[in-house]
Amino acid sequence: MKMIPLQRLTPEVFAPYGDVIEATGEPSYQINNGNADRYHALATVTHDAQGSAIISIVNSRKQPTPHTVTVVERHPLGSQAFIPRDKTPFVIVVAEAGERVRSDQLRAFISNGEQGINYHAGTWHGLLLTPFADMSFICVDRDGAGNNCEEWHFDEVDQVLLDIPPLD
Amino acid sequence: MKMIPLQRLTPEVFAPYGDVIEATGEPSYQINNGNADRYHALATVTHDAQGSAIISIVNSRKQPTPHTVTVVERHPLGSQAFIPRDKTPFVIVVAEAGERVRSDQLRAFISNGEQGINYHAGTWHGLLLTPFADMSFICVDRDGAGNNCEEWHFDEVDQVLLDIPPLD
Repeated sequence: MKMIPLQRLTPEVFAPYGDVIEATGEPSYQINNGNADRYHALATVTHDAQGSAIISIVNSRKQPTPHTVTVVERHPLGSQAFIPRDKTPFVIVVAEAGERVRSDQLRAFISNGEQGINYHAGTWHGLLLTPFADMSFICVDRDGAGNNCEEWHFDEVDQVLLDIPPLD
Repeated sequence: MKMIPLQRLTPEVFAPYGDVIEATGEPSYQINNGNADRYHALATVTHDAQGSAIISIVNSRKQPTPHTVTVVERHPLGSQAFIPRDKTPFVIVVAEAGERVRSDQLRAFISNGEQGINYHAGTWHGLLLTPFADMSFICVDRDGAGNNCEEWHFDEVDQVLLDIPPLD
């Protein structure tokens, strides 16, 4: 089984797959009479005309390591964001949008404990991976009629193992 | 100057103004092969056809108490959600949607440290109030052309003072 390493999550490396949601550098502008800093439009929520955007909470349990990627999924009708409420890194597995996906296209990223992510519509992605602690996420995605979740199961020979070292 | 007390934030008392975003009770369903609990569609994001929904981060500085409400605002073209990443209560000041607003319509709520809120389009609301600590929020609201922010300034005689006791 092939093993893929974790790359550090940055907006640049993640650009083919989606947005990184993080307040870094100077804020876009101040609001509330100067009492708050707004980092504006870090991600855009997309959905088809039949759907709508919703806000959910997803509480993920700590998972064992190493992790084997056996399945990925994609949401063709809308974007999907996960923003952690806990300051703990998590692991994101993605492959570029397309009708088919090969396991050699998979990339794995580790967040810095502040970052959230927003998958673009159609981006193949693994299950939410929280190897370091139980974590709570704000999820912003698309609701409505139609099939917005397609899964791709890898044959055993194509599955990949993620090398997830302990946090420093 | 009239003083108004803080009420405990619940979905029932907040229903005329918007949604309370909180994971309570049984989850809606499990995802990720049973490894995560999803509390589904706690709020719906609304926007006009010209606009889109975006995700921003708002970092609010700790404010002095007591607080005088001198101005409220409303967003006629879309909903606006603030979900804290810090487990600290914050204060929400609202009045029901309408062309005009009187200060005797104002209500003030205190969250329990887990709750976020989603103002319905048009709900009059005060500035984000963080009297207990610096706080970081995920904000989900509407972006696009058009005037989506109207302010209402109260005459001095109509301003209200919020009684904000220290946390227990």
